[in-house]
Amino acid sequence: MNAYIITIGDEILIGQVMNTNAAFIGEKLSYIGIPADYMMVVGDDEEKILTEFKRATELADVVIVTGGLGPTHDDVTRSAVCKFFDTNLIPDGEVRKNIERLMQRRNYPWTQAAENQALVPRKATPIHNHHGTAPGMWFEENGKHFCVMPGVPYEMKAMMEDFVIPRLSKLTHGMIIRHRVLKTTGIPESFLAQKLGDVDGLTKGARLAFLPSPKGVRLRITAQALTSEEADQKLDEVEKRIREKADKYIYAVGEIELEVTLSKLLNEKQLTLAIAESCTGGLIGDRLTNIPGSSTFLLADIVAYSNDAKIKYLNVPASLIKEHGAVSKEVAEAMALGVRKTAGADIGISVTGIAGPSGGTPEKPVGLVWIVYADASETVSLKFNFGDERIRVKERASQAAMELVRRKLLNINLAEQLSTD
Amino acid sequence: MNAYIITIGDEILIGQVMNTNAAFIGEKLSYIGIPADYMMVVGDDEEKILTEFKRATELADVVIVTGGLGPTHDDVTRSAVCKFFDTNLIPDGEVRKNIERLMQRRNYPWTQAAENQALVPRKATPIHNHHGTAPGMWFEENGKHFCVMPGVPYEMKAMMEDFVIPRLSKLTHGMIIRHRVLKTTGIPESFLAQKLGDVDGLTKGARLAFLPSPKGVRLRITAQALTSEEADQKLDEVEKRIREKADKYIYAVGEIELEVTLSKLLNEKQLTLAIAESCTGGLIGDRLTNIPGSSTFLLADIVAYSNDAKIKYLNVPASLIKEHGAVSKEVAEAMALGVRKTAGADIGISVTGIAGPSGGTPEKPVGLVWIVYADASETVSLKFNFGDERIRVKERASQAAMELVRRKLLNINLAEQLSTD
Repeated sequence: MNAYIITIGDEILIGQVMNTNAAFIGEKLSYIGIPADYMMVVGDDEEKILTEFKRATELADVVIVTGGLGPTHDDVTRSAVCKFFDTNLIPDGEVRKNIERLMQRRNYPWTQAAENQALVPRKATPIHNHHGTAPGMWFEENGKHFCVMPGVPYEMKAMMEDFVIPRLSKLTHGMIIRHRVLKTTGIPESFLAQKLGDVDGLTKGARLAFLPSPKGVRLRITAQALTSEEADQKLDEVEKRIREKADKYIYAVGEIELEVTLSKLLNEKQLTLAIAESCTGGLIGDRLTNIPGSSTFLLADIVAYSNDAKIKYLNVPASLIKEHGAVSKEVAEAMALGVRKTAGADIGISVTGIAGPSGGTPEKPVGLVWIVYADASETVSLKFNFGDERIRVKERASQAAMELVRRKLLNINLAEQLSTD
Repeated sequence: MNAYIITIGDEILIGQVMNTNAAFIGEKLSYIGIPADYMMVVGDDEEKILTEFKRATELADVVIVTGGLGPTHDDVTRSAVCKFFDTNLIPDGEVRKNIERLMQRRNYPWTQAAENQALVPRKATPIHNHHGTAPGMWFEENGKHFCVMPGVPYEMKAMMEDFVIPRLSKLTHGMIIRHRVLKTTGIPESFLAQKLGDVDGLTKGARLAFLPSPKGVRLRITAQALTSEEADQKLDEVEKRIREKADKYIYAVGEIELEVTLSKLLNEKQLTLAIAESCTGGLIGDRLTNIPGSSTFLLADIVAYSNDAKIKYLNVPASLIKEHGAVSKEVAEAMALGVRKTAGADIGISVTGIAGPSGGTPEKPVGLVWIVYADASETVSLKFNFGDERIRVKERASQAAMELVRRKLLNINLAEQLSTD
């Protein structure tokens, strides 16, 4: 079995929007052993779309289409689909209810556009859209599976997870490909490679890829086998050998963010956290509050961007800022202790640094960041340089601050400097 | 004239690498008036590559191929090209010199692989590679222009700028295509379409696309003309007609975020801002501090996630929370007034809501968010429902809060409810 992915949208052809949808779909299909042999982008042009539909069903067993399902004039996918399958549009009660629910919740009046969105091709099984008004469509004809989804990434992703992948999984027999990602942070790629040593000895027939990013290095293991149990067993063995050499750097298995791991740890240990941010500007709080249930442990995050705010909300002595500067070990420690005390939390962390592009000096260059961890019994202060790109400095600093807490909670030795690239 | 872009590489088909090359090439071609009508990705498979070459030359005047030119076993593009053009490989002195230069600079010994890379198809004009060993190739046959480049982005980009674009520009006899994006927020796509009315009357020969996202709807205008001045003038005219109908929703021209617009406005008016966040968890602060110079106006961002933090840092009366709940107009107003006063800022804004997935009730469902703006003379409170997806709720709430401040600063009528999809 193979697949042909079609992305519809002029904005991709002119390079304005990256084709992240095709990448996501290709990845998900590869996991269930249906390789995408083709990825095509065409514009919002009915004739070209129809030509592509025809070619796709000739070359592949599974066709996945995204984009062009909105309510405006430039969205032509649905009418092209009707022509291609020689079918007409009929109202669908469930789809209409979903649209009504969304419109009501947002206090929008019912419009002709909404009425139109509730129509579905007669030959299609509608795919429920939890996050938007345009339903997906699933066709089966001549042994081919043909799926159409909206181009809005989170709407499409939910449909893939909930409907498309479960349906397609049932169709594949034979060779199974499985991937597993181990996420590390606090160690640069070259150091991690050195620690792991001989790759063939680690993988023994599986494959290993190093995928570096500002948040850390992802290790992707790929194994192939006749059954998923066998493939998983291979992955288990490789993971075990990797952990023997680099366990402490691994904060998650799978595409899980550090904030998820940290939230779980804090909730398990029933500890509360308070944060004092300066150069990260709220990013740590934002990342932690992306996780449902973070209200159980996160009491407050004080973004004390000005010196006055550091004094007022965190009780940092003005004299300390005057003497050492806002970006200093002394002020960072006072911030962590201050936020821990004022918020009444078990753990206080602070981040203060120079994100740039301006504000650097020879002694305190752009990229310099102090991160402090404080609990009832100890205070740990670490100094970093995260480079000269503002957004990367924020990203790396937020990652290092959370990793510091994770390592403290797990009693992991901090002798080695934390780093995130 | 039109183009067909082919990207070769298994890593793209499995979603491991984003197809940034096609986006770059599509954008560059659009600027010189050669629209990319197709973007295709195929794997490192000679047969599939040959099929694609054939189709591309049938459907387009210009074919641009990247990827699969490296020295390893899985790079099959060059041999496919030779078969397609029925030609053989011959050594090229200039190409060899370039490879020697690179190898010497990196202190690498001369290898068989290097010798092999110095071969070029007899029918091709080699394209010099300043940054790597694999040369590009340029073919002209039967009136078609066929270009093959390495997949390494910076190697490809240099070849595009130095060789491909200058060559192709001569062929288009001046037809220029220009795009302009107007970013709107606070109005759903269908309402915006209604306000703009008849699209043909607006565009008069140009094209208009609606691109919705959780942060708002982007309007992309595309105009074609003989000179860039003429195209820009067309864009100006369409923009003017759009602004006559929907000016107040437009916060930026081009791919600029709302936080950039707002930062500029606050700095121009020399006003300071303090934020009290609850459900957005630091996202507003994070977004604003992504902008260099935000320290000039942003005094503090208090993420008061717990009730105690609202009382302690923002002076919200405990009785108010007890009586109305943390997500209420009353508490939202107390938060905005509280942060404005404690931080000593000109403007205070607050956000409190239920991001979900739990915590909702029939009276206060998940997605309910109160946003308040307070300055010395007035307090404005708005109630929203941003749906049931946690990250989207945060994203939409952060956008609406910033948009509320923008509209207040510009004295834009707030009678219509703000919305962000």
